Amino acid sequence: MAGSSYGNFFQITTWGESHGKGLGVVVDGCPAGLSLCEEDIQKFLDRRKPGQNRFSTPRKEDDTVEILSGIFEGKTTGTPISMLVYNKTQRSADYSEIAQYYRPGHADYTFDMKYGFRDYRGGGRSSGRETIGRVAAGAIASKILDQLGIRLTSYTRSIGPVEISPEHFDISQINQNLLNMPDSQAAQKASDYLDECRKSGDSSGGVVECIVEHMIPGLGDPVFEKLSSNLAKSMFSIGAVKSFELGDGLAASRAKGSENNDTFVRTADGIQKSTNHSGGTLGGISDGSDLIFRVGIKPTPSISVPQKTVTRSGEELEVQVKGRHDPVIVPRAVVVVESMAAITLVNALFSNMYSTMDGVTRFYR
Amino acid sequence: MAGSSYGNFFQITTWGESHGKGLGVVVDGCPAGLSLCEEDIQKFLDRRKPGQNRFSTPRKEDDTVEILSGIFEGKTTGTPISMLVYNKTQRSADYSEIAQYYRPGHADYTFDMKYGFRDYRGGGRSSGRETIGRVAAGAIASKILDQLGIRLTSYTRSIGPVEISPEHFDISQINQNLLNMPDSQAAQKASDYLDECRKSGDSSGGVVECIVEHMIPGLGDPVFEKLSSNLAKSMFSIGAVKSFELGDGLAASRAKGSENNDTFVRTADGIQKSTNHSGGTLGGISDGSDLIFRVGIKPTPSISVPQKTVTRSGEELEVQVKGRHDPVIVPRAVVVVESMAAITLVNALFSNMYSTMDGVTRFYR
Amino acid sequence: MAGSSYGNFFQITTWGESHGKGLGVVVDGCPAGLSLCEEDIQKFLDRRKPGQNRFSTPRKEDDTVEILSGIFEGKTTGTPISMLVYNKTQRSADYSEIAQYYRPGHADYTFDMKYGFRDYRGGGRSSGRETIGRVAAGAIASKILDQLGIRLTSYTRSIGPVEISPEHFDISQINQNLLNMPDSQAAQKASDYLDECRKSGDSSGGVVECIVEHMIPGLGDPVFEKLSSNLAKSMFSIGAVKSFELGDGLAASRAKGSENNDTFVRTADGIQKSTNHSGGTLGGISDGSDLIFRVGIKPTPSISVPQKTVTRSGEELEVQVKGRHDPVIVPRAVVVVESMAAITLVNALFSNMYSTMDGVTRFYR
Amino acid sequence: MAGSSYGNFFQITTWGESHGKGLGVVVDGCPAGLSLCEEDIQKFLDRRKPGQNRFSTPRKEDDTVEILSGIFEGKTTGTPISMLVYNKTQRSADYSEIAQYYRPGHADYTFDMKYGFRDYRGGGRSSGRETIGRVAAGAIASKILDQLGIRLTSYTRSIGPVEISPEHFDISQINQNLLNMPDSQAAQKASDYLDECRKSGDSSGGVVECIVEHMIPGLGDPVFEKLSSNLAKSMFSIGAVKSFELGDGLAASRAKGSENNDTFVRTADGIQKSTNHSGGTLGGISDGSDLIFRVGIKPTPSISVPQKTVTRSGEELEVQVKGRHDPVIVPRAVVVVESMAAITLVNALFSNMYSTMDGVTRFYR
Repeated sequence: MAGSSYGNFFQITTWGESHGKGLGVVVDGCPAGLSLCEEDIQKFLDRRKPGQNRFSTPRKEDDTVEILSGIFEGKTTGTPISMLVYNKTQRSADYSEIAQYYRPGHADYTFDMKYGFRDYRGGGRSSGRETIGRVAAGAIASKILDQLGIRLTSYTRSIGPVEISPEHFDISQINQNLLNMPDSQAAQKASDYLDECRKSGDSSGGVVECIVEHMIPGLGDPVFEKLSSNLAKSMFSIGAVKSFELGDGLAASRAKGSENNDTFVRTADGIQKSTNHSGGTLGGISDGSDLIFRVGIKPTPSISVPQKTVTRSGEELEVQVKGRHDPVIVPRAVVVVESMAAITLVNALFSNMYSTMDGVTRFYR
Repeated sequence: MAGSSYGNFFQITTWGESHGKGLGVVVDGCPAGLSLCEEDIQKFLDRRKPGQNRFSTPRKEDDTVEILSGIFEGKTTGTPISMLVYNKTQRSADYSEIAQYYRPGHADYTFDMKYGFRDYRGGGRSSGRETIGRVAAGAIASKILDQLGIRLTSYTRSIGPVEISPEHFDISQINQNLLNMPDSQAAQKASDYLDECRKSGDSSGGVVECIVEHMIPGLGDPVFEKLSSNLAKSMFSIGAVKSFELGDGLAASRAKGSENNDTFVRTADGIQKSTNHSGGTLGGISDGSDLIFRVGIKPTPSISVPQKTVTRSGEELEVQVKGRHDPVIVPRAVVVVESMAAITLVNALFSNMYSTMDGVTRFYR
Repeated sequence: MAGSSYGNFFQITTWGESHGKGLGVVVDGCPAGLSLCEEDIQKFLDRRKPGQNRFSTPRKEDDTVEILSGIFEGKTTGTPISMLVYNKTQRSADYSEIAQYYRPGHADYTFDMKYGFRDYRGGGRSSGRETIGRVAAGAIASKILDQLGIRLTSYTRSIGPVEISPEHFDISQINQNLLNMPDSQAAQKASDYLDECRKSGDSSGGVVECIVEHMIPGLGDPVFEKLSSNLAKSMFSIGAVKSFELGDGLAASRAKGSENNDTFVRTADGIQKSTNHSGGTLGGISDGSDLIFRVGIKPTPSISVPQKTVTRSGEELEVQVKGRHDPVIVPRAVVVVESMAAITLVNALFSNMYSTMDGVTRFYR
Repeated sequence: MAGSSYGNFFQITTWGESHGKGLGVVVDGCPAGLSLCEEDIQKFLDRRKPGQNRFSTPRKEDDTVEILSGIFEGKTTGTPISMLVYNKTQRSADYSEIAQYYRPGHADYTFDMKYGFRDYRGGGRSSGRETIGRVAAGAIASKILDQLGIRLTSYTRSIGPVEISPEHFDISQINQNLLNMPDSQAAQKASDYLDECRKSGDSSGGVVECIVEHMIPGLGDPVFEKLSSNLAKSMFSIGAVKSFELGDGLAASRAKGSENNDTFVRTADGIQKSTNHSGGTLGGISDGSDLIFRVGIKPTPSISVPQKTVTRSGEELEVQVKGRHDPVIVPRAVVVVESMAAITLVNALFSNMYSTMDGVTRFYR
């Protein structure tokens, strides 16, 4: 399997390595007539930009997107939208040392096992920079969802042991702190924790949470193309993700049916669930309530704490990964999670359009 | 998206409802020359059979599989293998009542929202019986893995609050207790807990764990077709799954890099990891160590505790789901988890065969 | 690639060999709410039934279809429709001889080359009986098209050197002669020609033509998923097909632009083409005029004329394929061509539904 | 369906319009370790370059390819190869007039019907320039085939009424004349014919033929993924193609079985066919003999002969398409046909690798 395409309807194909000429994405299956310009994309890309705070890598990355195709007179034409970000700095020399050994926690070893060799400059295709294409595509998917009134909100839920608290939850705080946490107190504690990590040359994991409001019920297909199933796949396709939970998630495994079932009630807006333990799907299909899911991210593997490892030829050595690296990637992953969710939702929306004969005949009448 | 097919290489297409004429699966892409008979399939199906213990539904289901195609003189021919299990008992009358209202925690409401109406007999396509096709296909996938020396072990890790303990972990116990737990003490406690649930008309969730030994490194493709990504998708395609964790999973989000990184060492068997926090993949590609993942399952939504809900027309009512239902589906899900894992692995194996030009030319020489 | 599935939206998966237990198809992606019963399918299957005239094989095949899933109270539910035809007569003994050698013109040799061995009974998967699943699925696709007013007409255009003439073309004749020709004089001549073939133990090829009226413009996607491209694929997937022409087809290669271009005119029904050299597509997308294409079919390879061939071990011998075989399969292929066209069109219809943002927002408003 | 991707294993995704910023392709699924540089690609692109002779458009197109990803130290890495050709001249002003009306024979009308509007500059996505991406990808596919000893030869078989003759067939002539014909006499006659067309402002169709030597038997899958079926699809995906024939093609429809069957013989090189009416496949799977197929191409629709048409609002008018256009595109299509054939073959090669259990276990041993 080629492996660089995602989505059967709104299909994205990403390409590029961290230290090649550039990175990009081709978005195929975007409906015609959507207003779209480079500024729409740039806004999303800027959310994943490093160098904005002291917890992210101080490397200078000036990621400016170019749209090369698929737009005419400010609107999408229905044909593939190719987007490109050139890599400005390609200091391959920095990476010559890591060509020799396998960095713990990185994909160096597995790329060698699979392909016989690897582009060792900065992680190649498993670099975080691969997400540039996803986020550019996510910006388009989000514009489509916006037209249908569907709204995504994503944020850092926890960093290491520091979690936001329900009492201090304040959505307006997300962009008020450097860690994208909707809780200013937690953000402060997490900031202190990260300072500590950084001082000891260590790093931290964390959890991103995403909420989708004003959902349309009926999205997702039974069995293998459940909305939940594709969300799980898309989230686990993001490097460093190690867990995925929908609704109550892991807690549901410990609950009783009487606690976990959401009862239905009649409201002014029609039938609704009184609670949302399910996180917005039943049988894998959206139930009209908010979609809520959490994505667990492991600590950045690049640390300056000395670690044991081996070279390609099996020689053991102790290494310290040089350079200044993010002690945490969680805040930068927030927009990636949101982008992959938006892309997954747009696919579910389009897939659902031929679910009933009534819908089809109404469309073509 | 049709949604009933899974796998791009070894493709399975399941069909059938719990109360229709039967259920089945078409397996397309199975290599020719694999010895296969109905007994191979039946052994797997019997592992998901209900009625074997007091915690599973006492309904009589005698699921006998027929292979209709794709086998000649005891071997697979390379063409589609169609397998069929007839439904013996189709007592639709039992289900007339639930046609009127939406059972909490079930997919009744979402199927109505998506399709305009539903086959209300026993959950239709969202019934647990849909997994018959997956397990039949999983039996074939497991035979393929077996030929390559790859071994899967699956079991119940927890039921409600009762979890197996590392100290008492004993793989030989899995088939010695009715709950498929590799810890006889935990199994006894869980059994007591389930008795309590059943008495109060309630149900319990739990966690299934799967370990894959003797893995081949290099399986899974970068970016969207990561092995981890497809495992997440396949597990979340199983009804009632609400969480998925790989390796340390959620705990990795709370860890530091120095704790979570697995260092490489040289062993008599070549380069290996000294620990396995990653759960067997790096960059989404298998690293040769054991694959370890956990699947969280919500409590069975069918409970006899009175619950509030509404009818299709929005009338509120209180219901008690009748009939004897499983207070827990976790032990029966064990073989489903194992089957979906096996199918996912076989796809990754076949996908990997053209990863290098050397491999291709060696194959065709 | 598994290879037994066709269609990304309305997906069919066929299975079964001519001499196994049975043959069938799973149709996934059929919208909910379509009235459907076994009689709808049987009517189509009866059109491909042999033994109806002296030009088709006198073997008794009583192909009775069973619908096993996907229908509830007379309507499709949106879930997979599994259909099954049991093989009544499995006289494998008849085929023991051909296990030893490669029949000229058949797929015996290539199946051995690909899979190492083959199910030699009656052609296995390359038998004409494989089309049972396609025709059963085509019956459903045709019902969907019918609801949108789209009508397909298919017929035998030529048999060997005998072609229908434009002067005597009479659509009402298609079902009035045993060869499904819309020209009674040509049918008589072709009948005489086939008698001659049969007497000499020989067989004949021919051409099937299909016309689709009341087309919706805009179907098919640019580049690789052109409507024309998928028609070509679907037709060439039918065994024995050796040529495919759209509109003027091969003649267009000899024409000048001024002869081949269709000019646009304004009519009471809107903009239309004044001629239809293109056969109903421009740039691979339907242009609203009738779709017209022709499918060339080679002569049946099973002949009783003595032929030279070799055994699996390379021993040369002369063979006469025994048994009574069709001297022509063209009339029986008519319904197969129509079925594959209908399935292709339904896929194009569903694919087109998200082509514009206007269409999407209108659908979900 | 997005529609701009082709191939399930070696997948290409093309993008770009004739008058946008550029055009390109992402090739995903290319094995690692193939030597590849821009010069390899440029050689193929130069074969489709216009302006080389008086029969092709005199517009200046200097198509220089850049490889943006997927190559490291001169070898493919197994990750996506992104290739880009910038459009040098974007004189959109030239095209302002054709924005108003529908050019006969072009896709203007169908794009408007599908998408509501179109990028009217030079045909947008249905321009012949879209094939740049295919040819760039075809150069890579050809390098892979070359490593396995498979050789493709393509040429112009006919232009208008002028066809090459078997007696004068000389493969060394293909690159000796401007029309890529392997027959110098036919090339002269065709040249005269085209001069005549050009003088009258008209254009001509023609036929491209492709031969693949040293084929590996067993390529292609039964039923829907036949090698023949995918060749048909890939050829019909090329704009202006109206017919496709394999082996004897249309002539097979007129033949008798005794004439059309290829008998098997034993040779020093093993079992072979004594003739090749089938064109290299049996049951859609390669039989080891040469693959031979023909692709019929319609005359260029852009002619300066006055033609009637209508505007978008339905106003009738007479138009003469201005500018100097190719009176024939057939010679330039030769490399496109070869490229799509190569891509199709590489997909069949990779797909075939897991056809037998023996092959799989041998690979992973």
